[in-house]
Amino acid sequence: METMKVHILGCGSALPTTRHSLSAQVLELSGKLFLIDCGEGAQLQFRRTHLNFNKISDIFISHLHGDHCFGLPGLISTLSLLGRTAPLRIHAHPDLEKLMRPQLDYFCRELGFEVVFQPFAPNAHELIYEDRSLQVYTLPLIHRVPSTGFLFKERPPQAHILKDMIAFYEIPLREIPAIKAGADYVTPSGEVVPNARLTRPAAAPRSYAYCSDTGYNEALIPLIKGVDLLYHEATFAQSEEEWAATTQHSTAAQAGRIAAQAGVGRMLIGHYSARYPDENLLLGQARAVFPETWLADEGMVVEV
Amino acid sequence: METMKVHILGCGSALPTTRHSLSAQVLELSGKLFLIDCGEGAQLQFRRTHLNFNKISDIFISHLHGDHCFGLPGLISTLSLLGRTAPLRIHAHPDLEKLMRPQLDYFCRELGFEVVFQPFAPNAHELIYEDRSLQVYTLPLIHRVPSTGFLFKERPPQAHILKDMIAFYEIPLREIPAIKAGADYVTPSGEVVPNARLTRPAAAPRSYAYCSDTGYNEALIPLIKGVDLLYHEATFAQSEEEWAATTQHSTAAQAGRIAAQAGVGRMLIGHYSARYPDENLLLGQARAVFPETWLADEGMVVEV
Repeated sequence: METMKVHILGCGSALPTTRHSLSAQVLELSGKLFLIDCGEGAQLQFRRTHLNFNKISDIFISHLHGDHCFGLPGLISTLSLLGRTAPLRIHAHPDLEKLMRPQLDYFCRELGFEVVFQPFAPNAHELIYEDRSLQVYTLPLIHRVPSTGFLFKERPPQAHILKDMIAFYEIPLREIPAIKAGADYVTPSGEVVPNARLTRPAAAPRSYAYCSDTGYNEALIPLIKGVDLLYHEATFAQSEEEWAATTQHSTAAQAGRIAAQAGVGRMLIGHYSARYPDENLLLGQARAVFPETWLADEGMVVEV
Repeated sequence: METMKVHILGCGSALPTTRHSLSAQVLELSGKLFLIDCGEGAQLQFRRTHLNFNKISDIFISHLHGDHCFGLPGLISTLSLLGRTAPLRIHAHPDLEKLMRPQLDYFCRELGFEVVFQPFAPNAHELIYEDRSLQVYTLPLIHRVPSTGFLFKERPPQAHILKDMIAFYEIPLREIPAIKAGADYVTPSGEVVPNARLTRPAAAPRSYAYCSDTGYNEALIPLIKGVDLLYHEATFAQSEEEWAATTQHSTAAQAGRIAAQAGVGRMLIGHYSARYPDENLLLGQARAVFPETWLADEGMVVEV
């Protein structure tokens, strides 16, 4: 099975601390890297992972607050210095292009690749990216500015061929793709061999949802139903519930309620307010509602 | 004597590594902090120093390459979150304001303080800042884009009053400021007490020159003559001398030649190319010309 991993580059909130960097993550799947948010310092954190900068395929920006996108100009400059030639797609709110173009034109005059802004409607739930192995859908969030989560759904992998059976029935190579895709096999004498006898079912497709920044948002629940891994912001503790509502962030317990109602596999929380010296406070409050909760931390790598 | 220190926040060149951050320093004098360059991540490095963000008085930007200024929007956002109200002056090439205003207007709508851009002529040598204890002069550098160094000159501190002599001559308090500033004292009976009998000379004023980025530039020598501390870029080793000329950077030996000819006290080198796994190579080449050379490093604090 292909690797599907989330690398945490930064999981602090707007005010960086010596413990947490600004929002940024990498989703790794089938040799491609998808960057999710790009706060200041994302490229420095990326370098620490020893992942390959040239494998970054697409960047997804949740919303236009500085702590989620101020790392873009530096990352793009570095990609250029590293000799990138492949286009770089940035999926974001339509305003991002008009804010960034003058910067790129001034600071990255000798850019060796194209930066393609792919605007999405921040309040919709729709497919914005797909390739052979992945589909990405937007998730409307609730925040002070338009904010959008992302649902990364692996496409159903093909069934595994049983080599012994292929040999037994002397099935020609040209028939294999159809069998992998689910077809039965008809022998030259007209016998139908059911697909189930020729294949072993593939693993279930995996899914990852990134929801940051957002206030408590029950409309998310049907959209992220049953995902294997959910990253949900948990900026505040219970004691700041009112302030969370005012600033349209979530408490740890609210994140737990979303995870429990959506029946997700596991939840990572992050986007911690700088006011908590120890995030185990947040972990405890989330776990009281949804036990399969874990604290995100810089450098962490999680299998989806 | 007042503290005068340089804090190194970042001393790498354009391509950040896991060892070096992008260009940024703090000069600390008389309780004020002056930020010199502000590459991406400067605010994160600043936080590690445990200096006080609110004491940042002025920012000096040497040139408009991203590795020297992409940290500005994040730093300004953080200052705002920390409740700053005092104006923040940014001394830079005139283009910076037109590049940054749209960003500040969009991302920092609720800024609680004024950002005042103070453009300077990048190719002049002139006074651009002064207060009670400091004067800052520009230093024209040689680079692919207009680039400017900064000379920080402490103003001559006042002489120290000899308390015993003040008591002996029964000098009224109102005369003290004039005596500190160098005046003789005339007693009620008309006797002239020379200033030298009443004071002990102050320490010599200190000076710091920041020169990055620049190619080899002998025109600097008279402008930085005898400074106590020089920070000079040394992006490349001897083996890259031609490439240094092409990209208008300096080799370590060239930095050493400038320091030696200017008769500076000590030199820090930095802005290391990412290609050198060990900067002792650069240190050796600079010291062969100017023995009082030291390698800048993140977290380093140097008394001027």
